[in-house]
Amino acid sequence: MPEIPDTLFEKLNDMFGKRMKIDEDFLEKYSHDETAELKGNIPGVVLFPMTAEEISEVLKLANHYKVPVTPRGAGTGLSGGAIPEPGGIVLSLEKMNKMVEFDESNLMITVEPGMITSEIQKIAERYGLLYAGDPCSSESSTIGGNIAENAGGNKVLKYGPTGSHVYGLEVVLPTGEITNFGGKMVKNVTGLDMVHLLVGSEGTLGIVTKITLRLLPKPKFSVALLAPFESVETAIGVVPKLIKDSGIMPSSLEFMDNSSIKLACEFLNVNFPYSEAGAHLILEVEGNDRDAVADEYEKLGDICLKEGALEVFVADNRNTREKLWKVRKSVAEALMVYSPVHCMEDVSVPTASIPELLKGSSEIAAAHNLETIAFGHAGDGNVHITFIKGKSSEEHWKTHLKQALRELYELAKELGGCISGEHGIGIKRKKYLPIALDEAQIRLIKGIKRVFDPNNILNPGKIVDV
Amino acid sequence: MPEIPDTLFEKLNDMFGKRMKIDEDFLEKYSHDETAELKGNIPGVVLFPMTAEEISEVLKLANHYKVPVTPRGAGTGLSGGAIPEPGGIVLSLEKMNKMVEFDESNLMITVEPGMITSEIQKIAERYGLLYAGDPCSSESSTIGGNIAENAGGNKVLKYGPTGSHVYGLEVVLPTGEITNFGGKMVKNVTGLDMVHLLVGSEGTLGIVTKITLRLLPKPKFSVALLAPFESVETAIGVVPKLIKDSGIMPSSLEFMDNSSIKLACEFLNVNFPYSEAGAHLILEVEGNDRDAVADEYEKLGDICLKEGALEVFVADNRNTREKLWKVRKSVAEALMVYSPVHCMEDVSVPTASIPELLKGSSEIAAAHNLETIAFGHAGDGNVHITFIKGKSSEEHWKTHLKQALRELYELAKELGGCISGEHGIGIKRKKYLPIALDEAQIRLIKGIKRVFDPNNILNPGKIVDV
Repeated sequence: MPEIPDTLFEKLNDMFGKRMKIDEDFLEKYSHDETAELKGNIPGVVLFPMTAEEISEVLKLANHYKVPVTPRGAGTGLSGGAIPEPGGIVLSLEKMNKMVEFDESNLMITVEPGMITSEIQKIAERYGLLYAGDPCSSESSTIGGNIAENAGGNKVLKYGPTGSHVYGLEVVLPTGEITNFGGKMVKNVTGLDMVHLLVGSEGTLGIVTKITLRLLPKPKFSVALLAPFESVETAIGVVPKLIKDSGIMPSSLEFMDNSSIKLACEFLNVNFPYSEAGAHLILEVEGNDRDAVADEYEKLGDICLKEGALEVFVADNRNTREKLWKVRKSVAEALMVYSPVHCMEDVSVPTASIPELLKGSSEIAAAHNLETIAFGHAGDGNVHITFIKGKSSEEHWKTHLKQALRELYELAKELGGCISGEHGIGIKRKKYLPIALDEAQIRLIKGIKRVFDPNNILNPGKIVDV
Repeated sequence: MPEIPDTLFEKLNDMFGKRMKIDEDFLEKYSHDETAELKGNIPGVVLFPMTAEEISEVLKLANHYKVPVTPRGAGTGLSGGAIPEPGGIVLSLEKMNKMVEFDESNLMITVEPGMITSEIQKIAERYGLLYAGDPCSSESSTIGGNIAENAGGNKVLKYGPTGSHVYGLEVVLPTGEITNFGGKMVKNVTGLDMVHLLVGSEGTLGIVTKITLRLLPKPKFSVALLAPFESVETAIGVVPKLIKDSGIMPSSLEFMDNSSIKLACEFLNVNFPYSEAGAHLILEVEGNDRDAVADEYEKLGDICLKEGALEVFVADNRNTREKLWKVRKSVAEALMVYSPVHCMEDVSVPTASIPELLKGSSEIAAAHNLETIAFGHAGDGNVHITFIKGKSSEEHWKTHLKQALRELYELAKELGGCISGEHGIGIKRKKYLPIALDEAQIRLIKGIKRVFDPNNILNPGKIVDV
């Protein structure tokens, strides 16, 4: 375990005072993220910087002393991206959580990385605008973390993932310089697209200290549909048809299998219509014209019914819509309570291959005698296939999970997909990366990492080892 | 001038036969692009590969012999990105112009890089779908070139630039490997975002040989509005208000000053309403519901009238709409005829700063006694300020253009913008890059270039010198 040298420790202590923590409770809390199956590493110190300049100083020191630094948002990550090196420095961005500017004329908001994502959604709403990033963790995750993982969520189908909304980034480079990539320009080909290289780089290429996001006019009307189906197969079979046959791009198209619904309802202590159905789809459409929105949801509802939906429920007021979404957004938390030992995946495949993915993953789970549930973002091909330890022995779980994961990733790759759609590689999927990427691609990733971070001090050991 | 060694020449000749050209006419034609003020360089050979494998072979040979290779689409670029090194190899992708796959279930199309962009638009349309990339050069530029420059165009406001539609790329790396970045997944955080690093990299990081683009449901109704204004100031002053006050995101929001309109009308030999007006805005709105679209264009029209439009014309059928767009899309060509010596810029600023940009650029032109016109994509902050030699002397033009450009770029930077929104840096703006980017950013660009292309054989001397 690399110790923090005394001289460095003293310098950090002078700089941060009470904003430097070394008590055991703190170190334990900051040793892990929410990846169920990953143990953490106890860091040497946790720092709470307030400015880009402080972060720059820390990174310069880290280069000098060759001590690893791991940035961290809310710690809600699901691939171990915020797990520090043992004895290293954790830089928690939690105190950098303010709005820097709301620029109504340009429809842009600039915030610090520690702001909770739902805060941004709420601020935008107050101005009649929409921040279209909407990960399920929006009430707890930070925008900085969303950027690190290019978080997806429930509106990617229509609006794209987090990165689609990011136009400008203030970044402290691993070498200590503070720089600004992009800005409030909608178009920019001045040099390489560093903004989108940083997005999804899991805190390995720089620490984002200010973020400029584009907001959109908020559609006046939103209607959600809930469509129960007899089986997973019939529900998932509808997905590719919905957009193609309707000519409509829903803002959401989500999927929950029967076990997911039961878990969430039990956790929330609520009832859900057709809770015995094999699977449910949730769709959402939006627009500025009430009649046009009604036409659209009727068209989508008709396709569902024609393709085997048992019923289509319309949630056209905020209250019902929020109840519906609460169930969907609680599945991950419910799972945590039901079986803390589980492995939630987020493979992503071409939408039309979702039925094959679901079929294949059930077979993998069955072959390894593992409990499984599936839910997620069916409309964009990103489904949370989850393996659950349940009552199986520790040994069975460990041996079979490893093999089941490999088979799942290989299946996703065969279907033209990838091994992570929105949670990232982090530590969790690092050894499986060669399933998804070839040698040349991994060589390029390592090369880029070295260009940004020659001493490999910033969040080392994530995505790849260099 | 680096000569192509005889042994390399023979190998290329064996491989390409009649698809290798060395006659003077060819070499001259492939020596330049459409950047009005840049002289070209005569290459040693022009090759017309048909496959990624052939390109891979050429790049391996180029590395061995240390001979520069410049990829080329239709040669319609506006920053010198396709100008070869003197005596080097030009790889023209013109013969790789086929559709590889139309995947209706996934709403994705895969094409070769040499396909003309408007072909893709037409294929999509045949299926009731939309390819939302729409550069003004769509009838002549290739999708490969659009990707190299992250071409913008007329629908960026709503749909984003070319890169927003690119999901998968087959790429031949400068070191010769053929690899696939991304694919048909809508979400992907498996490693770094190489797709969007390649987009806009001006053919310096790899040669794109297959492109997978996402298509969207095509809105059923499109209506264009033409709004003449007394002056540039009143027209441009409306722009930031249009989206903010209406809550509507038009698909286009274009601008032409009086000189632009006159040039285009003369070139096309057509009349334009209010052709004496100081400036015109063109707006376009789309949707699936005729009444909803009508409500939207009325709202936008009302805002224009309230803010000083002399009139608002509605083009609600394809014929009128196309006539309108023809004028807008012909400005660049008309300019070429009016004054072959000119310098078309594409600085990009936050939308709300457009009035200041226009005011400042007029002042710069006046101070340097240069003729100027302005037109372009007002809605996204990207305006084609153009300096024209007109009747000024060669010497006056050269001296003052250089200084005027520097002042324009500095103005764009001051306003929070960048020096190129959609045409790229290429050779043309290379020496001005330090106005837009700081030392650390330029160091990173050079570093990334070296990671991809250790021998600097692929399109050297573009964006930066390494």
